[in-house]
Amino acid sequence: MSKIAFQDTYPEKLSYCYGCGRLNEKGLQIKSYWEGEVAVCRYKPRDHHIAIPGYVYGGLIASLIDCHSTGTASAAASRASGKPLGSDPCLRFVTASLKVDYLRPTPLGVQLEIRAWPTEIKGRKVIVESELYAQGECCARGKVVAVQMPEHLLAT
Amino acid sequence: MSKIAFQDTYPEKLSYCYGCGRLNEKGLQIKSYWEGEVAVCRYKPRDHHIAIPGYVYGGLIASLIDCHSTGTASAAASRASGKPLGSDPCLRFVTASLKVDYLRPTPLGVQLEIRAWPTEIKGRKVIVESELYAQGECCARGKVVAVQMPEHLLAT
Repeated sequence: MSKIAFQDTYPEKLSYCYGCGRLNEKGLQIKSYWEGEVAVCRYKPRDHHIAIPGYVYGGLIASLIDCHSTGTASAAASRASGKPLGSDPCLRFVTASLKVDYLRPTPLGVQLEIRAWPTEIKGRKVIVESELYAQGECCARGKVVAVQMPEHLLAT
Repeated sequence: MSKIAFQDTYPEKLSYCYGCGRLNEKGLQIKSYWEGEVAVCRYKPRDHHIAIPGYVYGGLIASLIDCHSTGTASAAASRASGKPLGSDPCLRFVTASLKVDYLRPTPLGVQLEIRAWPTEIKGRKVIVESELYAQGECCARGKVVAVQMPEHLLAT
């Protein structure tokens, strides 16, 4: 397992994201790490992240998959270019499209594990697929098309 | 415009959803209304719903599209069956799949408008497509496959 979370290498001004920014006090502050060729994020939803009694809100699942996948895209692009995570300029990605298939209701009250891997790295685009597990069962699958953030957004 | 929000007709035990439950004090509490054949939801993201400075978090956009679309599925199924919203038994839907295409960055600090409509109503399945607007510009498109909630989940 990599020691540093992908998100902890983002420059300060890109660290306020509601899903993964370490500086967003009201956000989810997810952390993603390499475990070999797979990027893993573990997160335990709060009680208010409910859909119907006993189950996790689907929008939270989409959020976890989204942020973990763009983080994985950054880390995969860094790795492919031979640069360490956090090198300057930052290879930060945004989501062009997000697809989530909900396979079964996800139980609330347990830690979730999202496992993601790049399936394509080409130019400024990285495609990341993922699976979300609860208690060893795959409850959702994700596919994110991530594109490297345009410079004019980085300069904001 | 319909006077009653779709979500305000859900029975109490189905009103704790983080996205649309009127009884979830920490949730988004979105409201959806018919405007003719289109279901409309307006929501102003909070400051902490940030992605990068100046722009809305993509996971929030996915959440708004998700909940507004399942609400639209409920309302469309009620309308198709000739029943008023809130009839018993409740026609409540869950998301089988969610697809969001992010067309351009969504500016933070303004009210968003999500416009949704059913494109297929068949058996227990409703497909809902949508567009999310900020300041008159379409920033994201959504497609949700919603399925009527299984009875064993309603009985939880």
